[in-house]
Amino acid sequence: MRDAFHEQLQSVFADLAGICRSVETAVHLATEALLTGDAEIAERVISADVDIDLAREHVEETAFSILSLQQPVAGDLRIVVSALRMVSELERMGDLSVHVAKIARLRVPHVAVPEEIRPTMARMGEVAEDMVSRVSRIIVGLDVEAAIELGRSDEIMDQLRRRSFTELLGDNWTHGVEAAVDLALLGRYYERIADHAVSVANRVVYVVTGDLPARV
Amino acid sequence: MRDAFHEQLQSVFADLAGICRSVETAVHLATEALLTGDAEIAERVISADVDIDLAREHVEETAFSILSLQQPVAGDLRIVVSALRMVSELERMGDLSVHVAKIARLRVPHVAVPEEIRPTMARMGEVAEDMVSRVSRIIVGLDVEAAIELGRSDEIMDQLRRRSFTELLGDNWTHGVEAAVDLALLGRYYERIADHAVSVANRVVYVVTGDLPARV
Repeated sequence: MRDAFHEQLQSVFADLAGICRSVETAVHLATEALLTGDAEIAERVISADVDIDLAREHVEETAFSILSLQQPVAGDLRIVVSALRMVSELERMGDLSVHVAKIARLRVPHVAVPEEIRPTMARMGEVAEDMVSRVSRIIVGLDVEAAIELGRSDEIMDQLRRRSFTELLGDNWTHGVEAAVDLALLGRYYERIADHAVSVANRVVYVVTGDLPARV
Repeated sequence: MRDAFHEQLQSVFADLAGICRSVETAVHLATEALLTGDAEIAERVISADVDIDLAREHVEETAFSILSLQQPVAGDLRIVVSALRMVSELERMGDLSVHVAKIARLRVPHVAVPEEIRPTMARMGEVAEDMVSRVSRIIVGLDVEAAIELGRSDEIMDQLRRRSFTELLGDNWTHGVEAAVDLALLGRYYERIADHAVSVANRVVYVVTGDLPARV
């Protein structure tokens, strides 16, 4: 009985890591579409999101089946419920990548991000992608150290967001209201991806240690 | 055994309705702070959020205790897991109200929303508050009809958000980049509150009927 439980749980965590890798691809391509104004790449992100949704449903069904058939209690129960929460957050990160891709598509044939802001926005995309990539390794390795470390990247994301606000609210801003609004929303989407990444990593800490890390 | 289950479940749903009413107050006060530039009201929203977080923890602990001690299966199991999801969404709606309050506070002694945009923004606040208020009644009455009806208010919210974009991206916009960025983010926050309200209502439909409604 317990062996079946751990086998099914392993398959759930393997699925979570797989979804996380799909999210990583979505973040990567959405940022590429955004910085190059490439409608075809933006479409790919938007249409691939359905696969993340399906993978989420699969994880949910497996988790329900574990809960029903294995009736885990105490720590084991909390691990399965944590997996359900992780998959919700990963799906949301996919949705946020779609939001980024949709802003890119809306501005085609132009590029939504004015040239001098591209370094900051590219950096936000890189940090987000790196965080998501680390989360999939954290899930696979149940790596508590790496999960705690992830909070520091989140600080970098917050700094980048503040920097982008300084740029677009500064006196030198010459790109008008539309570009400023796009950038404010893009900053919000990347920040949320990073927040969810930290939250998923924290759930791994919880799964391994039984405690959530203090908020960093 | 089953009686204890239904009693505990009822207490969870009563708690969910209570949290929903706290969120309703948060949305109401955040909108008031926003439209009047009242720092004291904004502070109240921000500091009251900890109570929503605590109430969320209480619901989670009760749900875990039900899962551990009653070991529900099939439909009963899905109801308890739905409650866990509803409480996450309600907590998030509280956070989004805090985001609105923080924009209000940031612009004191000014009012973040320029005068001619206030009607649209006031309407977004009203629609959000009304939706949250209906959700608490939907939870109390397990009212499937009212839950399905809620999707229509969400359409009104989407229209309001499009209207606010038309206003701030139009040629008549004279309030600069900062106000436009504030409004774009505020629109996003209210829209997310409405999305979560619909999602919580949909979970009530699921709890009652065993099926999620088709996306409206």
